[in-house]
Amino acid sequence: MAVEEIITMARAAKGAARAVASMSTERKNRLLLRVADELLQQRDFIRRENETDLASGRDKGLSAAMLDRLTLSDKVMDSMVNGLHEVAALADPVGEISEMNKRPNGLMVGRMRIPLGVIGMIYESRPNVTIDAAALCLKAGNAIILRGGSEAINSNLALAKIIQGALSAEEVDPAAVQVVSTTDRQAINTLLEQENYVDLIIPRGGEGLIRFVAENSRIPVLKHYKGVCHAFVDASADFDMAAAIIINSKAQRPGVCNALETLLVHADVAAEFLPFMAARFKEAGVELRGCPRTKAILPDCQAADDDDWPKEYLELILAVKVVAGLDEAMDHIAAHCSQHTETIITNDYGNAQRFIREVDSSSVMVNASTRFADGGQYGLGAEIGISTTKLHAYGPMGLKELTTRKFIVYGNGHIRN
Amino acid sequence: MAVEEIITMARAAKGAARAVASMSTERKNRLLLRVADELLQQRDFIRRENETDLASGRDKGLSAAMLDRLTLSDKVMDSMVNGLHEVAALADPVGEISEMNKRPNGLMVGRMRIPLGVIGMIYESRPNVTIDAAALCLKAGNAIILRGGSEAINSNLALAKIIQGALSAEEVDPAAVQVVSTTDRQAINTLLEQENYVDLIIPRGGEGLIRFVAENSRIPVLKHYKGVCHAFVDASADFDMAAAIIINSKAQRPGVCNALETLLVHADVAAEFLPFMAARFKEAGVELRGCPRTKAILPDCQAADDDDWPKEYLELILAVKVVAGLDEAMDHIAAHCSQHTETIITNDYGNAQRFIREVDSSSVMVNASTRFADGGQYGLGAEIGISTTKLHAYGPMGLKELTTRKFIVYGNGHIRN
Repeated sequence: MAVEEIITMARAAKGAARAVASMSTERKNRLLLRVADELLQQRDFIRRENETDLASGRDKGLSAAMLDRLTLSDKVMDSMVNGLHEVAALADPVGEISEMNKRPNGLMVGRMRIPLGVIGMIYESRPNVTIDAAALCLKAGNAIILRGGSEAINSNLALAKIIQGALSAEEVDPAAVQVVSTTDRQAINTLLEQENYVDLIIPRGGEGLIRFVAENSRIPVLKHYKGVCHAFVDASADFDMAAAIIINSKAQRPGVCNALETLLVHADVAAEFLPFMAARFKEAGVELRGCPRTKAILPDCQAADDDDWPKEYLELILAVKVVAGLDEAMDHIAAHCSQHTETIITNDYGNAQRFIREVDSSSVMVNASTRFADGGQYGLGAEIGISTTKLHAYGPMGLKELTTRKFIVYGNGHIRN
Repeated sequence: MAVEEIITMARAAKGAARAVASMSTERKNRLLLRVADELLQQRDFIRRENETDLASGRDKGLSAAMLDRLTLSDKVMDSMVNGLHEVAALADPVGEISEMNKRPNGLMVGRMRIPLGVIGMIYESRPNVTIDAAALCLKAGNAIILRGGSEAINSNLALAKIIQGALSAEEVDPAAVQVVSTTDRQAINTLLEQENYVDLIIPRGGEGLIRFVAENSRIPVLKHYKGVCHAFVDASADFDMAAAIIINSKAQRPGVCNALETLLVHADVAAEFLPFMAARFKEAGVELRGCPRTKAILPDCQAADDDDWPKEYLELILAVKVVAGLDEAMDHIAAHCSQHTETIITNDYGNAQRFIREVDSSSVMVNASTRFADGGQYGLGAEIGISTTKLHAYGPMGLKELTTRKFIVYGNGHIRN
C-alpha cells in the first residue's frame, strides 16, 4: 500500500517537474504569494488540523519540547507567511548562463543553471518545514515530495492541501508538491529507492533518522549528522574578543548545530586565559570538561574523557583542551570535527591564513562566532539545510544548491575533425 | 585478505590526502613532470609487465579489440607522457576564492575551492587510465585509489610503482596514489563501503560495472551509463548543414558515448529530407531503423521497434523517427534520452532557444555535432569522466569537478545577536 502510493507519487512528481522547470520567475513568485494568502485565510483550518496532532501527541506522552516544536502557533504561521514573501523576493537562480566562451573553432560553449528535478525531503516534527522547503524547491524550479513525521501528519496534509490548491489555481500540476499521506515507515524505504524519479534526498532531523536515510538511499543525499564546532584561542588572541566569541558561540543558543562544543587553548596563554574565562563561563551557566592540563589550571572542572572530544552536547557544556600550538589544534580538529564550523581567535596573520586554508570544514572562520554558520547570515537568502559532505554542496545550502548546470553549445554547422 | 588490504589502503589514502591538499602548485607540477620522465626512462620495464598481461589475455582468449585496449604501445605511452605535461600546464583550481562579500555587519564571507579528499577510481581494461586519472586527481589536490581490471593488473602495478617512486622522490606520502593489488572482486565491494575514508567514486567501463558500483556504493558516485544521443532536424534546417552534422555525429567514431543514436525529423520536411539523406547514409555505411512514417518514405529501411528508441548501438546503426514538430521531438527526448547530449539543427531562433532551455540533458546543442560533448573540446583541459546525474557535476568533468568549495569567514570579533 505504502509502496504503491510512493511509486505513484514519485512518477507524478517527475512528470510535474518538467512543467515547474519551465515556469517563468513571475509565475513562480505569484504562486508563492498565493500560498501565503491562503495560509492567512485558512488559518482556522490549519489550527484545527494542528490541534488534532497536538491532542494525539499529548495522548502519546510527547515531551513539552516536542509538543512545542509541533505547534503551529500564530507566530510560526506568521513566519511561514513571511518566509514565502522572502523566497518570492529572492533572485531566481534558474537560467543563469555562465562561463560562456568561444572555442578556437568558433563553437560557443557555456553553462546554464537548471533545476535538479525532483527533491525528496524527509524530516521530523516541525510542520513549518513543509512550507519552507516547498517554497525553496518551487522557486528553484523543482518538484518536491515531503515526508514529515507521523506526529505531524494532519498538520502537514493541511498545509499540502493549501499548496496544492494554489498550484491548481495557478494551473500548475499539483503533483509538483506532494505530502506522503501514509505514516508507514516503509514509505521512507520505498522513496529512497526511486532513483529513476527522484534526484536528491534531503533529510532533516536527529542523527538516527539521517543515518537511516544515508545508509538506505540509492539517491544522492545531502546531509549533516551533527555539529561538533571548535574554537582555537591562539597565543596572540585578544582575551576580551576571545571571551565574547566563545560565550556567544556556546551560550547564545546551545541547542543548535553551529553552537561551540570544544575549546582549544594555546599552551602559552592557557594559565592566564582559562582563569580569565572561568568567571564568564560560570556567569553564562557553562560547565566544563577539561583535559589534564586544563584541570591543572582549573582544578574544579570535571575531567574530559575520550568520549567528550567528538561529542555534540547541544547544552551548556564545553570540552576544553590545552594544545601546544596551531598544529596540534588543527590535528585535533582533523581527528574530531564534524566538518561543520571551526573558528580561530588570533591576531597572527600567518596563523589566520593557515587556519583558513588548511582546516577541512564546510565553514572556517577567523575572529567570528561559530553561530554565523547559517545560510541567512551568509547572505544566501534562505537555507534548505547544511551539507557536511563535499559532493555538490559543502556548508549552508541556499536556492543555488537546489540547482545544477548543464552545458549549452551554439554552433553554426560545426563538425568534429 | 582483500578486505583488510582495502581498508588499510583507504585509511592511508585519507592520511595522505591532507598532505596532498596543502601541496603548492609548483610541487604538484614538479611531481607530474617527474612521473613523465620516469615513464620515458622505464619504458622497457612497463613494456615487459604489459607483455605479461597481454600473454595471459591471449591465453584467456580475449578478443582482438580487448587486447588492443590493453596494449601499452609506444603511441599510448607517448600519450600518457603528453597527458602529464598537459595536466601540469593546467591552472590549479585549488585555493581560488570567489563570491567574497561584506555582509551588512561587516563580516567578510566567501568561498574557497578545496580538494575533495580521496577519490576511488574503478575502471576496466585500458591501463593508461591509471596515469591519466592519477595526474588529474593529484593536480586537484586529491589522493586516489585505483582499481583497474584484473586483465591489466601487472601493467597497472608497474605504472603505480613509477608514480610511487616519483612521490617518494618528491617527499610526498606514496599512499597518495595506490593501485589495488588484488584482483579479488570483493575488493570493489569493500572499497565502496569506506565512506569514512573515501569521498567520491568514479567508475568507468561497461554499463554492467557502472550499475554494480552505483547499486553497492555508500559513497557518492559520479557516472554515466550510456549515451543515447539525439539530433532533431527542424523544418527550417539547412539540409547540407544537417547532413554534415548527422553523418559526423553518427559515423566519425560510432563506438563512443557521444555518437548519435536517434535522428528525429520534422514531418514537414521528412518527405524531402530523408531521401536526401539516404544516399549519404549508404555512403557512410549507416543502417537505419525507421518508425512507420520513416518506412513510408524509405521503404527499404528496417522497421524500428520499441527497443530501438532507448538503445545505444555503438555501431553504424541509426534509429529514425518522424515527429510532428519541436514539442513531439522534446517529448521523445525526455522519454528516451540518457541525459548525455542532444542537438537541434534549425534556422528558427525561437526553436533553438526553446531547445536549449527545455531539453534536460547534460549537453544541449544547436547546429553542432554531438561529438563535441567532451571535456577537451569544451576547454576543460582534460576530462576525468562524464556525469549524467545532476548532483555535483552534469556533463564532462574536468579538474574543477574534482574539487569543492568551503565557506571562509573573516571577522573582527563578530558575535551574533
